[in-house]
Amino acid sequence: MDLKSLIRHAKGDEPADLLLRNGRVVNVLSGEIVPASVAIAGECIVGLGDYPTRREIDLGGSFVAPGFIDAHVHIESALVPPAEFARAVVPRGTTTVITDPHEIANVLGLEGIRFMFESAKFGPLSMYVMVSSCVPATSMATNGAVLHGYDLFPLKSDPWVLGLGEVMNYPGVLNGDDAVLEKIGAFQDRVIDGHSPGLSGRGLQAYVASGVQSDHESTTAAEAMEKLRLGMMVMIREGTVARDLAALVPIVTPANQHRFCFCTDDCQPADLVGRGGIDHAVRSAIALGLDPVTAIRLATWNPAQHFRLHQRGAITPGRRADLVVFDDLQAPRARLVFRNGELVARDGQMTVPARPPSRTLRSTMNVAWDSVDFRIPAAGRRARVIGLLTNRLVTEALVDEPTCRDGEALADPARDLLKMAVIERHMASGAIGKGFVRGMGLREGALASSVAHDHHNLIVIGADDVSMMTAARRVGALHGGMVVATGDRVLAEVALPLGGLMSADPVETLRLQVEAAVDAARGLGSPLHDPFMMMSFLALEVIPSLKLTDKGLVDVERFALVPLWID
Amino acid sequence: MDLKSLIRHAKGDEPADLLLRNGRVVNVLSGEIVPASVAIAGECIVGLGDYPTRREIDLGGSFVAPGFIDAHVHIESALVPPAEFARAVVPRGTTTVITDPHEIANVLGLEGIRFMFESAKFGPLSMYVMVSSCVPATSMATNGAVLHGYDLFPLKSDPWVLGLGEVMNYPGVLNGDDAVLEKIGAFQDRVIDGHSPGLSGRGLQAYVASGVQSDHESTTAAEAMEKLRLGMMVMIREGTVARDLAALVPIVTPANQHRFCFCTDDCQPADLVGRGGIDHAVRSAIALGLDPVTAIRLATWNPAQHFRLHQRGAITPGRRADLVVFDDLQAPRARLVFRNGELVARDGQMTVPARPPSRTLRSTMNVAWDSVDFRIPAAGRRARVIGLLTNRLVTEALVDEPTCRDGEALADPARDLLKMAVIERHMASGAIGKGFVRGMGLREGALASSVAHDHHNLIVIGADDVSMMTAARRVGALHGGMVVATGDRVLAEVALPLGGLMSADPVETLRLQVEAAVDAARGLGSPLHDPFMMMSFLALEVIPSLKLTDKGLVDVERFALVPLWID
Repeated sequence: MDLKSLIRHAKGDEPADLLLRNGRVVNVLSGEIVPASVAIAGECIVGLGDYPTRREIDLGGSFVAPGFIDAHVHIESALVPPAEFARAVVPRGTTTVITDPHEIANVLGLEGIRFMFESAKFGPLSMYVMVSSCVPATSMATNGAVLHGYDLFPLKSDPWVLGLGEVMNYPGVLNGDDAVLEKIGAFQDRVIDGHSPGLSGRGLQAYVASGVQSDHESTTAAEAMEKLRLGMMVMIREGTVARDLAALVPIVTPANQHRFCFCTDDCQPADLVGRGGIDHAVRSAIALGLDPVTAIRLATWNPAQHFRLHQRGAITPGRRADLVVFDDLQAPRARLVFRNGELVARDGQMTVPARPPSRTLRSTMNVAWDSVDFRIPAAGRRARVIGLLTNRLVTEALVDEPTCRDGEALADPARDLLKMAVIERHMASGAIGKGFVRGMGLREGALASSVAHDHHNLIVIGADDVSMMTAARRVGALHGGMVVATGDRVLAEVALPLGGLMSADPVETLRLQVEAAVDAARGLGSPLHDPFMMMSFLALEVIPSLKLTDKGLVDVERFALVPLWID
Repeated sequence: MDLKSLIRHAKGDEPADLLLRNGRVVNVLSGEIVPASVAIAGECIVGLGDYPTRREIDLGGSFVAPGFIDAHVHIESALVPPAEFARAVVPRGTTTVITDPHEIANVLGLEGIRFMFESAKFGPLSMYVMVSSCVPATSMATNGAVLHGYDLFPLKSDPWVLGLGEVMNYPGVLNGDDAVLEKIGAFQDRVIDGHSPGLSGRGLQAYVASGVQSDHESTTAAEAMEKLRLGMMVMIREGTVARDLAALVPIVTPANQHRFCFCTDDCQPADLVGRGGIDHAVRSAIALGLDPVTAIRLATWNPAQHFRLHQRGAITPGRRADLVVFDDLQAPRARLVFRNGELVARDGQMTVPARPPSRTLRSTMNVAWDSVDFRIPAAGRRARVIGLLTNRLVTEALVDEPTCRDGEALADPARDLLKMAVIERHMASGAIGKGFVRGMGLREGALASSVAHDHHNLIVIGADDVSMMTAARRVGALHGGMVVATGDRVLAEVALPLGGLMSADPVETLRLQVEAAVDAARGLGSPLHDPFMMMSFLALEVIPSLKLTDKGLVDVERFALVPLWID
């Protein structure tokens, strides 16, 4: 809307397009609930109070808050492209997301990022992008694309690009790696998001000094407080696997509350559609005792400030009319959602049609199947074992003695010691990493998935080689996906043909498919909330302690490949 | 400092250039006092804690805060150019100022702004500029230059320009004035500062909707709260005449504290050097009961955030090493001041040499003396009278019956009814506005000054015409200045040859000259803290209620010229 019209509307000289009458406005600036009507013209809030209007909705005393902002999310983790992701989160009040498309970028590079932009355009969700700094994350895995500094710089001119995405390669920063510093240097005038689980002391100070401004990996109060004191925006993450909210909300005080925001990072569709995303974080924080207006501020004003989104995050004249209407301040659940002044969702359902995808993506499953062999020679006595931790992305580096027979080390489900393999799937190089994992809990069968952060090779975990091969082959045949198999039988499957990461189906359908796959995995014995999402992080070589890539086991603390066998 | 060196210093791999050992760091992010040493390399803070270093200073437990930021100041009001202004404020802990050079711009246009930039360069104070939006403020006065939108746009590319300076012409905004909206439109991607004394309701909402983001004119709690709720950063002003701190500090709460900062706006030199500027505001706020860390946040982090100065405002790795060291948290007085890592002041004295001005300015006093005549024909019975209010820039619009004799209306000091004239001094047009004023309190004599916001015509107030002419003529002979005279005798004078606004003398000398002039004015009967600064705002036609320009009396509420006589 042009400035002159905006002013006329705000003065009341022109009637508003829409008046939300009789609301209780959550003012995240003053920290108050202010009874007021909200006048909207075009895509903007034009005023608070009584205004002449063409149309009105009586809110009957409901609360009106700014639309929620997810400060850091990998949309691909919901296994759907942005248009379907919007259908999952917008009805729950999230109107803006800050995303780092580094999953698809690791598979398809700039083509993948462009796909995300195009899928988001003209949709009911504002998708801002932090361009992926770590493609690949490290050289300890093979991925599908490389993004150099010179690939990223042109993206700075895109109005939807806010800065540089999470700089996961913090060892690269601390070691003065030229390729990493080139990217950080080029984004000094923008927001630079961080990722530094467990980093502390001088290492953390150096990481902050380089220009990194946020972190979403704190899992303890002490870790978050150290980062906050050093100037980082602390993003409190509540995702499907990583759930840090309960540990971090208690440190939010009136004095430091402006230094926190909420993010989901990685959420699977059933969680997004079921319990919720940022709205779930807001409700959880309130349930833990955080003042409701403060909780909403962490979901609105604070991320808007951090990302310099000066048109968002508060209900004031001239800002975007992104609004959530709800009835219970103690447990906000979106009843109405407005985005750019338009009603886009009501009672949990979108009120605007989804836009069909404007393009698809070529198949990305390139596996040298003839060289795939899950056998592990018994080349020692004690082996490194990846140990899962509940609701954590970090793993334990365990040591155990695998069961061996005929010169071969075997999975032993009775001892919860499963075999794991990561099969390179971008170049058909034949590379395969193999090892053992504890905590998946399968009594039989296998899981396979083409979602494996961040290189997204084909990850397989199983109780026997036949099941593993069945599951892995089926993922290949689907052009990517998640499969549960036992013996030569496929029990459940989710096709993810878009980069091997995302479905072509509607999010509701996909949700059912994923739930069926999770149920099948549970049927095989896994006790995990989401065994597939947990599995997808077991290959991520930038989160401690022990991970497996197609190149082998990675000791993340040492940031080095290590042999499977200790002795 | 290049990124690689910065990281090495922060890791402790290279010794710091300076370690401030044994400090108590005021952490404006966490709201805590944290015992720590501060390591500095080059112009940056590199870390907190113990670090190898080339040199150290033991702070002995003193407090260390970020350098103070004055969020809105007209340097010219201190009657010295930026280099001398720095010598007044830096020893008191102000290391950054955001200035709108609209005083000199109203006299000399872009040439005046360039003079300010050049005077600030390589000095010990970071001077950021909000380019002057209102040159002239209105068409109800004659000033020395006009800055159109196309004059301002090129300044956006200057790294020291942050945005558009206070948009005083709020009626122009509300009326959709094209010239005003052109400027506001061009700065939508930057910070736009406001100035809207008393504006409320839909008018205020429209002003905010246009993109204006701050206001420093609130004088009451209710006014400030309305502005805060609508999204404005509330700048709490404590200047020489306008002192709003006591009225506004009580509304700062833990929930809204991030929406306030301090500014001085206009301070005369004796106040800056004597009681202080932003440091005085911090102390005053603490004395009124504000938590000291919060008070310091209002002087550091909050203005840094508002002005998007992401390298300033907190003591964290990578930020500019602008620091203030003081001993008493309840009444901070700078003992040491560092700017860009360099010790620039100790115990109230600069430790770095002042840089001589790189250029001077042409004389700007162009008065058609032959047409100057202070006589006021007795053309009615009741006349409009400007009524002064203590410590306020707003005036009352009074009505009284001037004493008349021989067809002429006279000053009547016994009734505190003085004559006032504003003589056009840029174009020698002969224009002169005349009227009456109450509250200056002169029993005899006259004051004259070439400082008269914002057009800076020659303003004269006196008890008789002869004294007025003596004072006015002397200001002309000085090429601008402030003069106290009685009869044909000059009692005190301050030469301000730089644009008729600023002295060529050191600030200490100037301070004594101004004090002598103020003393002389007091000797003539004025009870005011600073009669000259008060006088300088009596010609400012954008602050209510009644003002006088060279074109005549202005009713600011009606935003129109009005006749002197009512009936």
